[in-house]
This record gives sequence, C-alpha cells and structure tokens, in this order.
Amino acid sequence: MKNRVAFQGERGAFSEIAAIKYFGPFIKPVLCKTFGEIFWKVNNKEADYGILPIENSQTGGINEAHDLLLHEKLFAVGEVKLKVEHCLITKDEIDFKLIEKVYSHPQALAQCEGFLSKNLPHCQIIPVYDTAGSVKMIKGLKESNVAAIASNWAAELYVLKIIKKGIQDNKHNYTRFLVLSPEVSTDPKCNKTSIIFAVVSRPGALYKCLKEFALRDINLTRLESRPSKQKPWEYIFYTDFEKGLFEQSAQETLEQLKKHTTFVKVIGTYYSEME
Amino acid sequence: MKNRVAFQGERGAFSEIAAIKYFGPFIKPVLCKTFGEIFWKVNNKEADYGILPIENSQTGGINEAHDLLLHEKLFAVGEVKLKVEHCLITKDEIDFKLIEKVYSHPQALAQCEGFLSKNLPHCQIIPVYDTAGSVKMIKGLKESNVAAIASNWAAELYVLKIIKKGIQDNKHNYTRFLVLSPEVSTDPKCNKTSIIFAVVSRPGALYKCLKEFALRDINLTRLESRPSKQKPWEYIFYTDFEKGLFEQSAQETLEQLKKHTTFVKVIGTYYSEME
Repeated sequence: MKNRVAFQGERGAFSEIAAIKYFGPFIKPVLCKTFGEIFWKVNNKEADYGILPIENSQTGGINEAHDLLLHEKLFAVGEVKLKVEHCLITKDEIDFKLIEKVYSHPQALAQCEGFLSKNLPHCQIIPVYDTAGSVKMIKGLKESNVAAIASNWAAELYVLKIIKKGIQDNKHNYTRFLVLSPEVSTDPKCNKTSIIFAVVSRPGALYKCLKEFALRDINLTRLESRPSKQKPWEYIFYTDFEKGLFEQSAQETLEQLKKHTTFVKVIGTYYSEME
Repeated sequence: MKNRVAFQGERGAFSEIAAIKYFGPFIKPVLCKTFGEIFWKVNNKEADYGILPIENSQTGGINEAHDLLLHEKLFAVGEVKLKVEHCLITKDEIDFKLIEKVYSHPQALAQCEGFLSKNLPHCQIIPVYDTAGSVKMIKGLKESNVAAIASNWAAELYVLKIIKKGIQDNKHNYTRFLVLSPEVSTDPKCNKTSIIFAVVSRPGALYKCLKEFALRDINLTRLESRPSKQKPWEYIFYTDFEKGLFEQSAQETLEQLKKHTTFVKVIGTYYSEME
C-alpha cells in the first residue's frame, strides 16, 4: 500500500493535516526538514508521495516551493485547500496573564499579530522553524508559563491544552497544497493542470500565449510571474488552467504554446473542487 | 530643496544606496523601521520622497511592498535597479577562522548561504532586522570575533573593515526600487507605467485585458498575480507596461480596461532605462 507521505515539519504540521484530508487517516508520515527534502525522499523511494504548500490566500505564492517545482522532477497529482486555524497551546490550563513567552513559526506569528498584541502584549515572541515543532518544544521545557501557536491536531498529538482556538487575525486564511508523485496522473477525473512557461522576448508574446487558452474556452485560475534567475528582469509564468492535461483542447493548447515560448513544463494534472 | 528621502533600515541600507543612485549624494535620509512608515512619513510631509524595494531578481516580488502600493496613496515617479553586492564586514582585519558569529538580515543570509557554508561552516548565524543594522550592531559589541553582511557603503559609514566583497552566491542579484511621491509625474520622459487591476470573474477576462495592450503594441514587462484577500483564490494583477501614462495609447488602453475589470489603480508613471 502506497501510504508513505513526505512533508516538511514535525508531526502535527498543517502539511500533515492536508495529507490526511487527501489520503485519509492511515498515512505513514515521512518527516522532512526542508521543502527540498520532500522531493529528495520521494525521488529516492523513501516516500510514495509528497505534500507541498504552494500558496496562501493571505500572503501569496511560496517562493521556494515554486523554485523546486521548476527544477525538480515530481508531478502534481492532487490538490488540497486547507483552512488554517491557529490555536494558542499551553502545557496546563493557565490564564493569558501568566503566559510569558509565545513560540511559533514566523508566518503563524504574523498571522496572529492582532490577537497577540491585544491579548498577550506583555509576552516575549520567539520565532521557531515550525508550528508543530513549537508545540513539541514547549512540551520539553521545564517552565509552564510558555505557549505555542499551531494546529489543534498538534495539541492533540503532543497531549497539550488548547486555551484558545481560531486566533488568526483573518478568518479566511487558506493554504493550497499540491500532492506530488513520481508519475503523472492519467485519472480521467483530472480537471485542472499546472504548467510553467517562458515567453520568447517579443512584444505581445504573453498575450499570444493566453490567446491559445481563450480560443479554446479554457479558463485560467492563476497566472503568476517569477524571476527567471537566468537574466535579471526576465520572467517565467506559472499558470493553472481548468482542463485535464489529456483532454484534446489542453493538448492542442500546449502544442500551440510552443510557438510563443522558449519552454513549457507540465507540473501536473489533478482533480480540483471548483468554487 | 526637496531632498528628504524616507527608506526602511539604518544608514547604509541598500535602500539608501538606491536613493543616492537616483537623487545624487545630497539627500537627507529619513530612517523608517517598516515599509509602512515610509508611506506615513511622506504622507505627513516628514519626507519629500520614499524609496521602496519592490522585487528582487532572485527571490521575486516583495509581498508587503505590493500590499502597501495597493492600499496607500503615493505614486511611483521613478525606478532604480540596483546590483546587490554583499560584503563580509568585521571590526578588525581578522582571519575567517577566528569569526564565531555572523549577523545579517535573513534575506542577505539566504543570498550568501553557499559562501557561508563553504567558508564559515563553524559560525553561528544570527538573523537581525536589517543588513546595515547588523553593521551598526557589531560595532557596539565588545567581542571582535563577530561579522556582519551588508553593503560596502554600510562598512564605510560605520568605519569597519570589509574582509571580503561580493559574497552573494548569485552574481546577478538585483533589486528594483520605486521612488514614491505624493504627486503623479507629468514628465514627458516617462516611458513606463505600473497599474493594479482586478478582472471581472468571467472566463477569458484576463486575456481580454491583455488584448487591449497588444492591440496598441504596448509591451508588458511584468504581470504578477497576488491574492485579493477579499475572497480566497481570487487574484489581483500587478502590471508594468512600456508606455508613459499620458500618452494617447496608454490612456485608451486604461479606458478600455474598465470593460473587463472591477477596478484599475494607477501606481505611477516614470522613466525606465530599457534593457
């Protein structure tokens, strides 16, 4: 059974919750220190799949994840959209006033900034590498006047107390993850495809690329430019479109794109619940 | 004379170098702790202009700067493309082997990761809020076995030693800055315009927007989607195009864009040296 799933962070990470949402509860977590390690472990058959956060509804695209998709060889075969709900977690049920230090990942701290400055203005805020890691960390500390910010799943796994749920400032805080595999998906249910392309340097080249989609009534759900890193101020484009890779109109579009691009890379095709 | 320029960071910051490149040596630096403070100080007449880093050729768009351009009222009236050259700076001329701690901004540390792991593998790496601030900081420390990573200009200002220049891993490391002012530029030399727009939610709407540019032979130099933050997975687009705002074809394009967009905001128009 292929159920070893590689993700970045400790047990209880939001990536693990995304993996469970996609695969169900019986996954074998393969813990990675970095996003790069996810690719390495799947490529080296230490994991069957990887889970990679790709963008957040508040903060936008995750740069490092995009760079890895460009250079590495895995395919996206699934998508998970996860609501990110942060919890304030302590060792015992204590009053806010008694908390002196709050640990979490800088992104999580930033997403809860309003809550922290209103309710815990006296606290020292300490950034650590991982949300779930901050829970594991406070469990190991001798002091009890410490708190971590992470998922409710992390609190459950490390058997600590949640003293406040949903402390993120924006209630519509979602992260989108891609499920990665060494093989491209041929599932006929696939209705979305992600590609990367670079346009030839001629005026209107990008417009001509988008025309190929428009001519075939294919809707783009995302178009994001990123520096090419080969030459300053040259860009490559990450695009998601609403069509399975092996449908005829998608194949035609990709064929026509070659005329206006210097390269096209298929990141993968997968099923997406359309809003 | 309007020469008070607000930027984020301490004296010697790369933003200050960008300001000097644009305005010449006789600026009065107005130091800001955050990007938001740049807008506040210019709006409140504590500075005449602001300098805001907007994208890096390696790491891409700077999220916080983009959010501020969307919500705040200043106009971009100039552009600076600055080569970012990091230096290893110490208090005395000491051997690499004697350095025990290296301080700098996380972005700078990331850009010099290869150099650090090759030449200073034994060192403790300590992130601080600002590159120039890390130089100011080590100057105030008692120990001499400490180093900072910042511009050569920062080393000069704080009268410390540069023991190695150009330590960034990628030699083509550029940052693009915008010069901000309360007034839109009417200089006839302006040849580039930056706008933000949101498309109506109809298939092909983005394509129709780009068509308006293509029809008038206006080249887009950048197109970047960012989350709208109003609704998950809705995007707004940041676009730069090669045409002065008050040229007829630009005015026509903006007029036509209204058909396919829910809003269009002009960030500014300025002169850009075209590659």
